[in-house]
Amino acid sequence: MTVGQFPVPNAQIALSELPLRPELVGEEPYGAPQIDVPVCLNTNENPYPPSPRVRAQMSAAIDKATRSINRYPDRDAVDLRADLAKYLGFGLTADNIWAANGSNEVMTHVLGAFGGPGRTVLTFTPTYSMYPEYARNTHTGFVTVPRKADYTLDAALVLDAIEQNRPDLVLITTPNNPTGTTTAVKVIEEICENTRALVIVDEAYQEFAEFPDDSALALLPRFGRLIVSRTMSKAFALAGGRVGYLAAAPAVVAACRIVRLPYHLSAQTQTIARVALANRAEMLAQVAALREACQHLQEWLRRVGLQVIPSQSNFCLFGRFTDRHAVWQALLDRGVLIRETGPDGFLRVCVGTPPELAAFREALTCVLDDPGVLDLGEGNPR
Amino acid sequence: MTVGQFPVPNAQIALSELPLRPELVGEEPYGAPQIDVPVCLNTNENPYPPSPRVRAQMSAAIDKATRSINRYPDRDAVDLRADLAKYLGFGLTADNIWAANGSNEVMTHVLGAFGGPGRTVLTFTPTYSMYPEYARNTHTGFVTVPRKADYTLDAALVLDAIEQNRPDLVLITTPNNPTGTTTAVKVIEEICENTRALVIVDEAYQEFAEFPDDSALALLPRFGRLIVSRTMSKAFALAGGRVGYLAAAPAVVAACRIVRLPYHLSAQTQTIARVALANRAEMLAQVAALREACQHLQEWLRRVGLQVIPSQSNFCLFGRFTDRHAVWQALLDRGVLIRETGPDGFLRVCVGTPPELAAFREALTCVLDDPGVLDLGEGNPR
Repeated sequence: MTVGQFPVPNAQIALSELPLRPELVGEEPYGAPQIDVPVCLNTNENPYPPSPRVRAQMSAAIDKATRSINRYPDRDAVDLRADLAKYLGFGLTADNIWAANGSNEVMTHVLGAFGGPGRTVLTFTPTYSMYPEYARNTHTGFVTVPRKADYTLDAALVLDAIEQNRPDLVLITTPNNPTGTTTAVKVIEEICENTRALVIVDEAYQEFAEFPDDSALALLPRFGRLIVSRTMSKAFALAGGRVGYLAAAPAVVAACRIVRLPYHLSAQTQTIARVALANRAEMLAQVAALREACQHLQEWLRRVGLQVIPSQSNFCLFGRFTDRHAVWQALLDRGVLIRETGPDGFLRVCVGTPPELAAFREALTCVLDDPGVLDLGEGNPR
Repeated sequence: MTVGQFPVPNAQIALSELPLRPELVGEEPYGAPQIDVPVCLNTNENPYPPSPRVRAQMSAAIDKATRSINRYPDRDAVDLRADLAKYLGFGLTADNIWAANGSNEVMTHVLGAFGGPGRTVLTFTPTYSMYPEYARNTHTGFVTVPRKADYTLDAALVLDAIEQNRPDLVLITTPNNPTGTTTAVKVIEEICENTRALVIVDEAYQEFAEFPDDSALALLPRFGRLIVSRTMSKAFALAGGRVGYLAAAPAVVAACRIVRLPYHLSAQTQTIARVALANRAEMLAQVAALREACQHLQEWLRRVGLQVIPSQSNFCLFGRFTDRHAVWQALLDRGVLIRETGPDGFLRVCVGTPPELAAFREALTCVLDDPGVLDLGEGNPR
């Protein structure tokens, strides 16, 4: 038996006195600042909430679901997965679908099953800033290779990176966040034909692309090692609902089931998501307008003298600023919150409602009155 | 660039052809069988759903929350954590509370922050069958030491196990699942006084104990390395809602925030949980009756000749059967689903409504008509 009294810390103990894992020391919780301002264009949300009609259906479905909320929910979320398969089309069924609390949990399941200690995931920068966190949380090695100068990818670049880094998983984001750049299906196809790594295509923003049906989903019948990830947070206007999902071979779904925590999807989440899917035409009604508004926004930004990365999403990167943080702060001071992310000197803005976009343009116009904010150097920085 | 065509598997690829992590090969997804039968007494749920009045409040709150469900939810769930602190009492505030999708996600956050490769968690068997999964998913070493013959714990046993195994985390479950055995606060106190390991006390069933206020929560002001875990799934009748939480030093909460996935708690989950907490008197109204029914059930089981582990929870272990699976199946054939878990020869049943318990007693009486089902050997097996 242990003898002797250890020091007894009280509840004021500091994090530095606790045995936090060494790689987490000094880390900050991930997330964009949640600041209460009139115009939030920082997290690529769909600015349009569900209609009163859909909300009434959600409310009624919750009333029904709470009749048995004392019981555990369907652990396999079979009905929700069937609805998601139907939404995606491409001949997919519930057996091809896995769903979780946001695509970040879906990705964690994939890395938990196929990544982990001694394995690595390869991705192409600049890209979504959460990916390193998924790798860190699952103890998967994280390797990055830069995209081309215009932020696109081709098969040669990806296959060369695979050859050099020998990853277990390859993560390709299209449209890419934060650049909005797409990767054509034929590029994904060539990659899948030439690697035994698992290829994860993150299509979180696919519905906003010019040709949303030009999706890696079309390749699934041929490639058992291909995983396509989607989310209801963006086009589907359900960021608060936290539902992400993937489509893949049933064996991939079986692997996710092994590592998932049981009952990971609550009764209320399954319920809300199913109502949204049953009303998909209405939930997605604003997507075409948002896509068009994003193209108009890019044109306007170029017209006022800014460099814009061509985006097929509901957001775009623009710059280049000598001090992007100062510009970000100046916009925030005018009540407009955007995101300080992406390559040096660039900022990311997402498409809001017409009044929100008008407020953004007005605020940015004020900021641009000082020509010193612009960095007029050539080319795209990495 | 990679050259040559790899074999191209189609969507019928088998799991054995995918690069599943070696330690997951052959693993089955965790979970009790979800079988549709009249009487489910297998997952320790509260059998009483919320009242129509509370359900109407949940529905109305969802109607309000969905007005902004296109936006991400409060990433830190501050209001929910404040409500949970208020419910627990003991002078706790939101800063002491962390919440997630079920206590299994809470535990994963704790092991993600303080466990992981090269670290170990120690627990005392027989205990909750999910613990090895938390350890496996976080790559934390998992060490077990048997409880005493009567399934209780004392400080000497625990401190001796700590001395011998040098764990980073110690996990003590009270009331313990599946035995229902409690560990007194003074035992926890003596353990905390004599170890620098993090001590996690899982009080998932605490509200069902004879003295629910006799909780390790009382020790928190003194011990910065103590974590007390709770859930809304059991007494709170919200298994479908998936809300677990812990109380600890603010530094522990800060560590959980580093490893959590952002926006892990959906808008609808925060909403439903807050309505339940606002109606806590009503949500917990059946707890006293369930506690009493569990004691009566234990008396009845003893009266009919069975051995029963004394339980202070809403479930109990009884036996000992020569072939427990045959008894489990015979009960299921009669429409009563219980759980095949715990020491050899024992089965676990949880307390349902009076008609559900009557159905269980009737079914078990039939099964006991064959005296051969009983193993009349002496003592408790491990």
